[in-house]
Amino acid sequence: MAAGTTPNSTRRSERSRVAILTATRELITEVGYAKLTIEAIAARAGVGKQTIYRWWPSKGAVVFDSLLALSESPDGGIELPDTGDVEADLKAVLRATAAEFSDPAFAAPIRALNTEIINDPELAAVYREKMEQPIREAKLRRLRSARDAGQLAADADLDLLLDLLYAPLTQRWLLRSGPLDDGFADALVEAALRAFRP
Amino acid sequence: MAAGTTPNSTRRSERSRVAILTATRELITEVGYAKLTIEAIAARAGVGKQTIYRWWPSKGAVVFDSLLALSESPDGGIELPDTGDVEADLKAVLRATAAEFSDPAFAAPIRALNTEIINDPELAAVYREKMEQPIREAKLRRLRSARDAGQLAADADLDLLLDLLYAPLTQRWLLRSGPLDDGFADALVEAALRAFRP
Repeated sequence: MAAGTTPNSTRRSERSRVAILTATRELITEVGYAKLTIEAIAARAGVGKQTIYRWWPSKGAVVFDSLLALSESPDGGIELPDTGDVEADLKAVLRATAAEFSDPAFAAPIRALNTEIINDPELAAVYREKMEQPIREAKLRRLRSARDAGQLAADADLDLLLDLLYAPLTQRWLLRSGPLDDGFADALVEAALRAFRP
Repeated sequence: MAAGTTPNSTRRSERSRVAILTATRELITEVGYAKLTIEAIAARAGVGKQTIYRWWPSKGAVVFDSLLALSESPDGGIELPDTGDVEADLKAVLRATAAEFSDPAFAAPIRALNTEIINDPELAAVYREKMEQPIREAKLRRLRSARDAGQLAADADLDLLLDLLYAPLTQRWLLRSGPLDDGFADALVEAALRAFRP
């Protein structure tokens, strides 16, 4: 075993990693992406700046890892449930998303980042690559499986279906234009699927 | 005719009003809502502060009037086209909205305001009352007319249909997540209407 990778130091590393990602999410909520600094993250997490730079090349990298950590399953991948019933699975996922959006610990850092993405095309591009695309791919895999099972039309535009499922939810959350509850999630899934039934 | 309302002074007033609304839209784009001041608007428009306060009670009031002026028809009302063919009318409206979103003179001040609405629940409430609701009411009137004409299901949830029509368009614009063109507008209208056909 190489120096610095004994079980104790691995545990210490994992504790530092979690502390850094948590500090990053807290700070992006408090000060926004533009004013966030590696120095402030290190101070909040109780680690040295060099520890952060050893693991992440830039501020953007640690920010996106801190947010991705919220969406990851325990094995590090992103996968939607597939019970064989696409309507039931999507209702479960959209109800959970609506509940997450209603939880400030989850929603506040993503809200802060979204604000800056709206005015920063470069940040928007990084966000798309690091966060949106991997999650979108997982959702598309679930919809393809439903199409293969004959629950969606063979020529269904799955990208458009995804927009119909998620954009009203995201907009209602970002613009606070209405309640985000199970009833809304269910109605959204039913309407979006009706548009693409076989 | 009362003093100060001769034809000449009415023309001068209208010129000042247009200059103030234009200056407001320019400044909100450049500095954002939070840093916008009545002083700066007055200076840019070439009028005195007291002229602005005579017509508008607050910064918020002049900002919303400046943005509403973009959506108003010449007679001051907001109305969607109604040729009797809801699919054709909605495609025309969504194509026009996509084109407006692609025009910086129109889109930049609304983008700047949206950014602040995301983080300011009070501003979000004013925005809903002054801008979103009147425009939403006009859209709902058009959808009710389509439902009465038998082009939508009698039990169609018109609020949800509106979300399905507009949220994907708004999200694609705000988050720059894809092209905003006629093809997207048409596909969106077709899919959203399929979900609510009789």
